Amino acid sequence: MKTAAGPAITLEELQLAARNHGLPLEALRHDVTPLGLHYLLTHFDIPHVDERTWKLEVGGRVDHPVTLTLDQLKERPARTLTVTLECAGNGRALLARRALSQPWLQEAVGTAEWTGTPLAPILNDAGLAEDAVEIVFTGLDRGIQGEVEHLYERSLAVAEALRDEVLLAYAINGQPLPPQHGAPLRLIVPGWYGMTHVKWLQAITAVDEPFRGWQQDVAYHVRESEEEQGRPVTRILPRALMIPPGFPDFLARTRFVEAGPCTLEGRAWSGWAAVERVEVSSDGGQSWADAELRPPVGEFAWSGWSYAWKAEPGEYELSCRATDAAGHAQPSVAEWNYDGVCNNGVQRIRVVVRET
Amino acid sequence: MKTAAGPAITLEELQLAARNHGLPLEALRHDVTPLGLHYLLTHFDIPHVDERTWKLEVGGRVDHPVTLTLDQLKERPARTLTVTLECAGNGRALLARRALSQPWLQEAVGTAEWTGTPLAPILNDAGLAEDAVEIVFTGLDRGIQGEVEHLYERSLAVAEALRDEVLLAYAINGQPLPPQHGAPLRLIVPGWYGMTHVKWLQAITAVDEPFRGWQQDVAYHVRESEEEQGRPVTRILPRALMIPPGFPDFLARTRFVEAGPCTLEGRAWSGWAAVERVEVSSDGGQSWADAELRPPVGEFAWSGWSYAWKAEPGEYELSCRATDAAGHAQPSVAEWNYDGVCNNGVQRIRVVVRET
Repeated sequence: MKTAAGPAITLEELQLAARNHGLPLEALRHDVTPLGLHYLLTHFDIPHVDERTWKLEVGGRVDHPVTLTLDQLKERPARTLTVTLECAGNGRALLARRALSQPWLQEAVGTAEWTGTPLAPILNDAGLAEDAVEIVFTGLDRGIQGEVEHLYERSLAVAEALRDEVLLAYAINGQPLPPQHGAPLRLIVPGWYGMTHVKWLQAITAVDEPFRGWQQDVAYHVRESEEEQGRPVTRILPRALMIPPGFPDFLARTRFVEAGPCTLEGRAWSGWAAVERVEVSSDGGQSWADAELRPPVGEFAWSGWSYAWKAEPGEYELSCRATDAAGHAQPSVAEWNYDGVCNNGVQRIRVVVRET
Repeated sequence: MKTAAGPAITLEELQLAARNHGLPLEALRHDVTPLGLHYLLTHFDIPHVDERTWKLEVGGRVDHPVTLTLDQLKERPARTLTVTLECAGNGRALLARRALSQPWLQEAVGTAEWTGTPLAPILNDAGLAEDAVEIVFTGLDRGIQGEVEHLYERSLAVAEALRDEVLLAYAINGQPLPPQHGAPLRLIVPGWYGMTHVKWLQAITAVDEPFRGWQQDVAYHVRESEEEQGRPVTRILPRALMIPPGFPDFLARTRFVEAGPCTLEGRAWSGWAAVERVEVSSDGGQSWADAELRPPVGEFAWSGWSYAWKAEPGEYELSCRATDAAGHAQPSVAEWNYDGVCNNGVQRIRVVVRET
């Protein structure tokens, strides 16, 4: 066993990496990610919520503010959507100078069946005032980030919040939400990166000017320096990931494959439009071949893909990349940005093919 | 947002930390850890098992080798045990020179209700030969570790394997085992560190000489160098952990608490004997006071504890420590060992108490 000479890993990043977790990539084989394998990022602490006394306040620039209990929400029309969620920080630790935050490689993704009630009818029943421009979603999770103490809060433009597919979800994969996924209620905004899907909701507030909370105004921007405002992170850029073939070395995670026919499989998704094409490379990205793409497992979820690879003895770097119908593609290496967000650079897997 | 200048964290450790995950310590509040919050360590890949064709082979030095299907195992007498599991590597990353492996801080623990059928009657029905000295448990997970390709395998001395509480478990918290916890069948050996509880079982084999597989003979020893054989890791040493009070800073995880009465709460456990005493320190371990200890939540599970702290404005290092009835206690800082196992040094939490 090798040992590291000193505290090379920063304790701060390690504390986050030990709490949060990605999808072990072999779990890409499941159409719907089993509970406990879906990626999970918790900014502060998982709040302890008593569902019996919990209430959702819907207010602000509305004609009829309303307070809803969990039972009242469950009595409303229910809808189940299969949705692929990805953390905006996925790929952060692969950037050369990494932002000190959750150090994701490429595994911060998952697909779940979310059951809840659509948001739009609730806002319509409350009667949005004409001057309402955004809807603010407030969680119960409190902490300090960027030296600002705040509850986790994010907003959506009114038109985005009123989309049919935006849900207030109280169940995942047919089970009540577990604490870590936002019990008793969370927002689901299909197509958007994970920071949008506010967990542990306590309030939904219509506002007449753009929300300036820290998680909205400072965090989650593509920018080159702390001083720059940058471009807000919104929908998920396309990405393809491969189930690492063969079996691994424990520490290096190098893969070992026996020579012969080898079916490479994985998933691909985009929050902008349908994935149109997935390509595979076995020579470190010098040449690419089309994979066979299956239909998505749900309107807002990833597609499966496969590729018949003839594995001959040697060492390889396998990669895959996705292109969506809106013309978004994956770069070989993503451009650096200060917060380490939206890095959809291609996956690289080191594979040793052995003589059979 | 701060940025790190270079790849300070080793990619190898990060790959493991992103796949595996600990118990977020606020989840210590649950008597039984909700699914998805229990710690998880997977050496190689999570195998993909078809439960309809899966079978368990019971053989080796037995009179009547037998093959059992999952249905046959479920038809046998069922028993549910509440068991606290901890990874032997818990605390590894807090050691000065850390072994390159899963870099746990102190969160690799969880308590679950495991349902299965006792192992002893299966071995008795098979008829252990007189020369059987150990029982070997073989998983379906294959990989390379220590430069040796192997299936994950561990053994127990016959007397240990025949203990009443050793289970072949097919359910957790009342649900079928999910893939990551060893579906369709895993071993549960209450009191022992996690490496013993072999997941994805495919074979149970009685042998007439001590098993020398890599995970048994090389890994999981307390030793000072690679050359030394060392002392095998067996039962869980006592540990107390505290739910970090107040709310956190996102990156540093420093805690902020309002001045006034503050109930400190947590869990304590030992695999050797009942926990007899939990103590709390608010001055970095200079002085200690007894916490109130509750009965364990199950015969093989952790106990809750609480302590009424008068939080006055200032900065504190909170700690807690457990002592068990067999006389094992927690050191302030654990002695270093080469593999970074069995580190039950006390937890330290930095807390800022603010004026109310």
